[in-house]
Amino acid sequence: MVKQVRLIDYPAGRAARDFWSFSGDALPALDENQIKVRIDWVSVDPGMSGWITDKPSYMPPVKPGEVMRAFGVGEVVETRSERFKVGDWVTGFLGLQTEAIFAEKAVRKIDVGQVPPQLFLSGLGMTGYTAYFGMMDIGQPQESDTVVVSAASGAVGGIAAQLAKQAGARVVGIAGGPIKCAYLTDELGLDAAIDYKAGSIGAALDAAVPAGIDLYFDNVGGEILDAVLDRMNYRGRIVVCGSISQYGDFAAARGPAGYMRVVTHSLKMQGFTMRDYMHRVPEAFETLAQGYASGSLKFREHVLEGLETFPDAYEMLFDGRNHGKLLIDIRGDH
Amino acid sequence: MVKQVRLIDYPAGRAARDFWSFSGDALPALDENQIKVRIDWVSVDPGMSGWITDKPSYMPPVKPGEVMRAFGVGEVVETRSERFKVGDWVTGFLGLQTEAIFAEKAVRKIDVGQVPPQLFLSGLGMTGYTAYFGMMDIGQPQESDTVVVSAASGAVGGIAAQLAKQAGARVVGIAGGPIKCAYLTDELGLDAAIDYKAGSIGAALDAAVPAGIDLYFDNVGGEILDAVLDRMNYRGRIVVCGSISQYGDFAAARGPAGYMRVVTHSLKMQGFTMRDYMHRVPEAFETLAQGYASGSLKFREHVLEGLETFPDAYEMLFDGRNHGKLLIDIRGDH
Repeated sequence: MVKQVRLIDYPAGRAARDFWSFSGDALPALDENQIKVRIDWVSVDPGMSGWITDKPSYMPPVKPGEVMRAFGVGEVVETRSERFKVGDWVTGFLGLQTEAIFAEKAVRKIDVGQVPPQLFLSGLGMTGYTAYFGMMDIGQPQESDTVVVSAASGAVGGIAAQLAKQAGARVVGIAGGPIKCAYLTDELGLDAAIDYKAGSIGAALDAAVPAGIDLYFDNVGGEILDAVLDRMNYRGRIVVCGSISQYGDFAAARGPAGYMRVVTHSLKMQGFTMRDYMHRVPEAFETLAQGYASGSLKFREHVLEGLETFPDAYEMLFDGRNHGKLLIDIRGDH
Repeated sequence: MVKQVRLIDYPAGRAARDFWSFSGDALPALDENQIKVRIDWVSVDPGMSGWITDKPSYMPPVKPGEVMRAFGVGEVVETRSERFKVGDWVTGFLGLQTEAIFAEKAVRKIDVGQVPPQLFLSGLGMTGYTAYFGMMDIGQPQESDTVVVSAASGAVGGIAAQLAKQAGARVVGIAGGPIKCAYLTDELGLDAAIDYKAGSIGAALDAAVPAGIDLYFDNVGGEILDAVLDRMNYRGRIVVCGSISQYGDFAAARGPAGYMRVVTHSLKMQGFTMRDYMHRVPEAFETLAQGYASGSLKFREHVLEGLETFPDAYEMLFDGRNHGKLLIDIRGDH
């Protein structure tokens, strides 16, 4: 029996714990140009909040009653496609389910010979690509730069911070709590870490970046952005990371109080999402895969086990309880 | 006798009507490398508000008791400089006064053979340069663009809007009241004008730019920026014009409510001031002077007469009562 997590209805706010149902449906026979995939790992992403609302977005919403959309990786177990043979590995929107049938065009083949398959959901997937293009194409860190990254122990921020460090910049990460901060300096090798829960973010920035900030990779907006803006150097750049838009309530999101500094210090703020860069994914993949292989890039994963953990996993994202890319290992559900 | 306008003290807010005194002092004899200049025209600029506060800024403040800083144009009437002869025309911070002595390095020679001298305070001065670099270097209007300019009948906005129109874009100007709006379409040849005082700015934008906005030249911030942001197209650009920072109260200036659209639509917001471009002034001057000579660029001036009009002139700027570059003709004061 195949297991699925389905959306019952659109939640009104972030809290969605009671909006999921678990089903166990049988699969039909394959049609031509279809494959059956056994799904081993699924990804829990902030973008999911945009898929369970009826507001217009860049993707159609998941409809009530449907299997919840999610990135996943899995192995082809049955095929009526000439493109895929049994034993091939694939990724794409495989959904929160243990097994499913897909049109051959709906998934992408991956090579898991060198790397564990779940990496295609973290550092070698959208998370890594987002960090790569945001930092390297928009931010363009220089050796002389002081770079600040918020949510720096998070899935995207951690990779973005490491890429800036590799470019020779001085990199300061902002994270919540001493454990995440120790990870930034001790594991990722950042120059300093700021615990935004420990006190005044402004005073901590004054101590960590006395000469101001040249490049800010913004994963969070809000008060931290305000404090950073006040300390941006002349001609500073702010990368407004795609994932920020997918946390919380769009309507409540407000702009930085220090808007005037954009003028007085000739700042540039630039937003992006991955749709700007889909045509350049191979470039990101190559860089990230090489970094991983050489040990110079670390991808932190936060792994839960079993589809039944999903309602809690989804809430963890918005509570900041995860540390690294949040994945669910569903091999035990098969 | 030479007449001057002096700052009595720093005003607490915008209202500065009672903070000016009028003096009539004699000038000392010239030292070496000095010139005496008869000043014919002075410029009233929003930037003045930043000079009459003790808050740190990009320029030192005018001290209480000093002659008020202002751009001006005038003629050399006495010289102990090898660089200047009697009859030369100069511009620079000549101050609110009818005659004054300057170090030769403090002023710049101008050629008034082809154009009236006061143009060096409007379209061929900082106002024109700000419009030019903001629109042409940062904004870079394309033929396929829909461009919106706020304060489009103002000194900077009017020139910026005409430059975008010349680049082939569709240009919509925002201004306050039917007279200014008629000027935008009838005199400047813009494609449409929106009277922000006439009703909902959002509804007016929906009617004027149904296909959205590609480039916004922001002279005002606030609610108009919010309404424009909601209608920015994918990969839109927002030029945050230098002069905006000099209107009103820095501390109260707030960022746009639609910050999230910066991400979802991959927008770029870029601020600038003229200090970024001082090295490229000749390029701007050339373009603007040619446009003026050929009649393709119109520079609107709002001229008052006499130094005694200054306290009112200063307040006009912030009330939006001026229409065009605000100048004072002080030839009658000599």
